[in-house]
Amino acid sequence: MWRQLKPVGRHAGSGGYRRFAWTGADADCRDWFREQAEARGLALELDRNGNQWAWLGDPSAGDAVVTGSHLDSVPDGGAFDGPLGVVSSFAALDELRGRGARFTRPLAVVNFGDEEGARFGLACVGSRLAAGELTVERAHRLTDADGITLPRAMEAAGHDPDAIGPDPERLARIGAFVELHVEQGRALDLTGDRVGVASAIWPHGRWRFDFRGEANHAGTTRLVDRRDPMLSYAETVLAARREAQLAGAVATFGKISVEPNGVNAIPSLVRGWLDSRAADQTTLDTVVHGIEKAAREYADAHGIHLDVVRESFTPVVEFEHALRDEIARLLGQEAGAGLSVPVLGTGAGHDAGILSGSVPTAMLFVRNPTGVSHSPAEHADEDDCVAGVTALADVLEGLACK
Amino acid sequence: MWRQLKPVGRHAGSGGYRRFAWTGADADCRDWFREQAEARGLALELDRNGNQWAWLGDPSAGDAVVTGSHLDSVPDGGAFDGPLGVVSSFAALDELRGRGARFTRPLAVVNFGDEEGARFGLACVGSRLAAGELTVERAHRLTDADGITLPRAMEAAGHDPDAIGPDPERLARIGAFVELHVEQGRALDLTGDRVGVASAIWPHGRWRFDFRGEANHAGTTRLVDRRDPMLSYAETVLAARREAQLAGAVATFGKISVEPNGVNAIPSLVRGWLDSRAADQTTLDTVVHGIEKAAREYADAHGIHLDVVRESFTPVVEFEHALRDEIARLLGQEAGAGLSVPVLGTGAGHDAGILSGSVPTAMLFVRNPTGVSHSPAEHADEDDCVAGVTALADVLEGLACK
Repeated sequence: MWRQLKPVGRHAGSGGYRRFAWTGADADCRDWFREQAEARGLALELDRNGNQWAWLGDPSAGDAVVTGSHLDSVPDGGAFDGPLGVVSSFAALDELRGRGARFTRPLAVVNFGDEEGARFGLACVGSRLAAGELTVERAHRLTDADGITLPRAMEAAGHDPDAIGPDPERLARIGAFVELHVEQGRALDLTGDRVGVASAIWPHGRWRFDFRGEANHAGTTRLVDRRDPMLSYAETVLAARREAQLAGAVATFGKISVEPNGVNAIPSLVRGWLDSRAADQTTLDTVVHGIEKAAREYADAHGIHLDVVRESFTPVVEFEHALRDEIARLLGQEAGAGLSVPVLGTGAGHDAGILSGSVPTAMLFVRNPTGVSHSPAEHADEDDCVAGVTALADVLEGLACK
Repeated sequence: MWRQLKPVGRHAGSGGYRRFAWTGADADCRDWFREQAEARGLALELDRNGNQWAWLGDPSAGDAVVTGSHLDSVPDGGAFDGPLGVVSSFAALDELRGRGARFTRPLAVVNFGDEEGARFGLACVGSRLAAGELTVERAHRLTDADGITLPRAMEAAGHDPDAIGPDPERLARIGAFVELHVEQGRALDLTGDRVGVASAIWPHGRWRFDFRGEANHAGTTRLVDRRDPMLSYAETVLAARREAQLAGAVATFGKISVEPNGVNAIPSLVRGWLDSRAADQTTLDTVVHGIEKAAREYADAHGIHLDVVRESFTPVVEFEHALRDEIARLLGQEAGAGLSVPVLGTGAGHDAGILSGSVPTAMLFVRNPTGVSHSPAEHADEDDCVAGVTALADVLEGLACK
């Protein structure tokens, strides 16, 4: 399976993947999914929002067990984020058939469309539309960097953009959704475990900090006469690291825009974006308030005008405790008496997080020895991937073959 | 004179000037210069490098006294930087004629082309070409943001790009060049003087700092596992301010480029440009070495790879002492017994600095009450501008009418 998928959308220069929604590489991934479904005698469905489903058993029977992830990528992403979950889903089905398992519930493998949001700037578009978390109006206004709107991109790929929208009937058929994903951190590597179960997705948000000073000549303006917003920005970057460290959270300034951005010009505007996440809401509030307070003090000291705008926010997603505990029990059973499976939180968003509002949902993580993610260097050892497939098979057997 | 020039190349939105080399606004400025020359019965010359000269007397007689500046602007520049020098030159000539002065040396007003370098990225192109400080090969490779080369832009404006090159015969005719300019700082405002004489142009340079770390997920990568180059950049910005303050110099990070520049991505590369200038070479060396040393310590502490490249450097320009002292004497005489004219250095480059290698050169500065420059807010009071014209007339009379 991996062999056919590996070259699709891979950039020769960077070695990273560029599988963006509704592009040729995306269509190739979808063809691959169709072929995998057909080879296993599964019934293929393409839903109104562009998500692909491969069914074993009667979809309309209800209480189905669904597993899967996504095949698209961030710009120059790695091979595992997304595809590992889809490939493992098909492999786990093969494993269950090899075990001679008898299915008592319908089972489906799913490939959610446009999870990374690399092209239109919004993540989890396929699952958000299905769950009613993204309105059709807003989806129709999404535009890529070349000015192409989502409806035009869908049309070019042969999908009807007027068909998109909430899909409660389809979600109502699902009794449990389990998404397997490569870990995007090093928690499992540090505990020495191959596989873990997700407890929650951390609350996270994005804030834009606009530091406005006064453009002036970098060669002739005395230091005391300057209102240089780059200084307040720099102090705030360092404050963000300090506040995050104190609270055991993360805070990152990874994007910046400067005006006029000239070598010999003191900037008039430095705009920095803060991404921050923490295990719980109170901690996140503490971190962000701490950073903003420090930024205001620095700005006041340099005569800088500061505006802070929250651009997006996603509250904590607690995965359903009953399903999580059932999965931990199933995996613990297999691991042997006295052994427990680690339960861990994550700072990244997923389709599973979007669906968790409508469907009992759980996630499995496979060890990532370096923690590197969203990069060509993203990696999982083969033995750990095999352990992931076995764990997913155990979970699916426990849920769908009782 | 001001009234006709004021609307040329002014942007309705910003209120700033956009007079870029070889554009329509530039052609309008050149037409204005031609009309001013014709109205005064001066002989117009356009030299091979696109600089305009308006002659009183025989250019080929030699030992001429030349005054002037430039008419082009930075993006959204002010009304005074450049034009004040050209307007004051014509006005000083009118003043001398009003005084009934008899000229014993040829006199010319000059408008140097492309002083700001706003379009092609290199400053003082007209004077550099004439002085042989810019090779024809390099000039022919200069390209603007739309991919238009300098030769194509010259052709489009009706100028022969193959004619450009060193012009030693023309420079050999000049016995003295005096450029009047609005001050780009607040030294005169602080001493309470309307007009000053330049001692030197500070040595200055541009250095590119490339901080290379590791791209990673901003939500899932633990702080201790990060190699985030934004932190080292931020620390270096603050170090630059500290070092400049200690040494009485200036140091500015005004331009930055980040990869991948995504809100949820730890950067792989933060590239910052340092502009630094000081009154003398030793001080500048001390400042830049101090900043680089600090940057290396910060980079090492965060596992960041740092490269520092010097992109350009201009050594100190000391204006000719004999001419400078003669000018200070002429102005002091007018001001009355016991009054002296302030002599000050400047951090900005000028055509006068380029010419000073070939021709005895001096500069006069007119007070700038806010010090703001390269901005629509750039200003000089009318009384101070009139004082500048009178001072320039005194100097020209002293030099050309003895």
